[in-house]
Amino acid sequence: MKDMHSVLQNQFSELTKLARKFNCFYLSGLHEGICKPFIVAGHQVGLIRPDVMKHLHRFPEVFVITGKFVELNPAFRGYKERTSKVADVLQALRKENEICALKGWRDECFEVSTPFYHESLLEMDRSAICLFGIRNYGVSVNGYLTHPTKGLCIWLQQRSFTKQTWPGKWDCFVSGGLAVGYGILETAIKEAAEEASVVGDLVKKLVPSGCVSFFFESERGLFPNTEYVYDLELPFDFVPQNADGEVESFELLTAEECIQRALSPQFKTTSAPVLLDFLIRKGYINPENEPHYRHIVELLHVPLQSIYNWPYTSATTNGDGKE
Amino acid sequence: MKDMHSVLQNQFSELTKLARKFNCFYLSGLHEGICKPFIVAGHQVGLIRPDVMKHLHRFPEVFVITGKFVELNPAFRGYKERTSKVADVLQALRKENEICALKGWRDECFEVSTPFYHESLLEMDRSAICLFGIRNYGVSVNGYLTHPTKGLCIWLQQRSFTKQTWPGKWDCFVSGGLAVGYGILETAIKEAAEEASVVGDLVKKLVPSGCVSFFFESERGLFPNTEYVYDLELPFDFVPQNADGEVESFELLTAEECIQRALSPQFKTTSAPVLLDFLIRKGYINPENEPHYRHIVELLHVPLQSIYNWPYTSATTNGDGKE
Repeated sequence: MKDMHSVLQNQFSELTKLARKFNCFYLSGLHEGICKPFIVAGHQVGLIRPDVMKHLHRFPEVFVITGKFVELNPAFRGYKERTSKVADVLQALRKENEICALKGWRDECFEVSTPFYHESLLEMDRSAICLFGIRNYGVSVNGYLTHPTKGLCIWLQQRSFTKQTWPGKWDCFVSGGLAVGYGILETAIKEAAEEASVVGDLVKKLVPSGCVSFFFESERGLFPNTEYVYDLELPFDFVPQNADGEVESFELLTAEECIQRALSPQFKTTSAPVLLDFLIRKGYINPENEPHYRHIVELLHVPLQSIYNWPYTSATTNGDGKE
Repeated sequence: MKDMHSVLQNQFSELTKLARKFNCFYLSGLHEGICKPFIVAGHQVGLIRPDVMKHLHRFPEVFVITGKFVELNPAFRGYKERTSKVADVLQALRKENEICALKGWRDECFEVSTPFYHESLLEMDRSAICLFGIRNYGVSVNGYLTHPTKGLCIWLQQRSFTKQTWPGKWDCFVSGGLAVGYGILETAIKEAAEEASVVGDLVKKLVPSGCVSFFFESERGLFPNTEYVYDLELPFDFVPQNADGEVESFELLTAEECIQRALSPQFKTTSAPVLLDFLIRKGYINPENEPHYRHIVELLHVPLQSIYNWPYTSATTNGDGKE
């Protein structure tokens, strides 16, 4: 199996390798079976790795750990109690300074909700989401223009070197996580204003264009991410100006330069899906120039909805929303 | 389970129900485990239902049926021998006139290839593909324009009443299956000319825009379909003219009228994914007006690549191309 895998890996196109990189957990870790479902109020909302489980074992009054799953103590009733009990554990762990992800504490809460109806169960600091493999939702904006001689051109941003995650890396034009209390379009509008000074009539041109889903893993944790995607055609004379100190610089690149940037180690891996999806929708990456086109499209839309479906079935391609 | 299912079903939006309808096999039949993998040259290329298996049992020299799978006799060497042996069986079955799908014999061959490298294994008549659950590839073109007062408008075609499949139903502007010997863009160009007289400079405006994958089942058989999607912005004064007798009529509809048509029984179920994907990419269906937006996007891209992966794993969300 290992050899077959290496043989295939060598024959993948560079773009396919990138799509497999941002799905490294979907393609391997998920099937190793060493992570346990994380259950809250009877719903699987996440997956927990052994390195995190080790710490949770010390809080048996909060986390019930069995051979098959980790459950938030079902005696906790309601959003507030769950949120506060989990926050206490996270604060205790944060003080010990042993968990890499918690070093990036954000003071910005993300919501944990039931898989299908999105009933809110609790909230936790954004930095802790990846420890529990909670599904993460964000918004990304592709800022682009069609240049008379260079064709499709795309604005990219370089993240500030002071950011908690992926400092200094190249990223999409504008993006942000969906924090508690904010809507999807609302987040796109807020981030476009803060990150790139897109305001007024220009922001009305945001076009919702789908979403991408992938399942990445890093040293910090698990990232089952869904990004809601917006396209924004910008005037030739527009130059983005950062307003919140989170951006180092902006650069306008041709589509080909964008691909080279995305393939380089200077690009934030988890932003590559949004860029690839955009270049596919605009026809720049197409069945005539990419041999694994449909494999890449599949890897931009992995069935996250179906993966968190314990206890109904094992991690199969169930996808029927029975979760 | 049944009750939970009905409760959820009632709360789905109409568009979600449609996305579940064209994925009826993905969402239920696939998990019932009554279909057996169809193996050719060591690769799973399809799934076979019990009603088809019943007929294949009579040709033990061609199909080796075990408790776990159906295998094309591995003694057959090469494309030609496999093609001819299968064709003999299909002709015999066709004469008996008992299999619904074969009544629509096409005299147009589709290719059966290995899941990842697309190495050609054999070809068989298009009408028989669904009996073996072979992956089916097609091309669809969204013909549209932005009307000054009505906004986004889309040309739909009504299929000829003499067509073998879905006669008289409403369908995308232009579409066609990928037959042996034709490329993807080539098929789009050919079908656009034949079905709608799109030729000359106009056809150069075809923009490849991604692909949709879904897994439908009907009385005729199993349809694990992938459609390569092209968008074509048409001039206001363009009126499509059919050139091959396969189209009853064309009609220009607003986006809202298109949705109503797609939801009606007059629409070809397996063409709805292309239309929904288009309306999502154009922002007409968006996270603000569709509560199950990301569930629908997921159902437009089910992981067909990962389903046919016998014998490495059971039907899990493997997707790593080891097939």
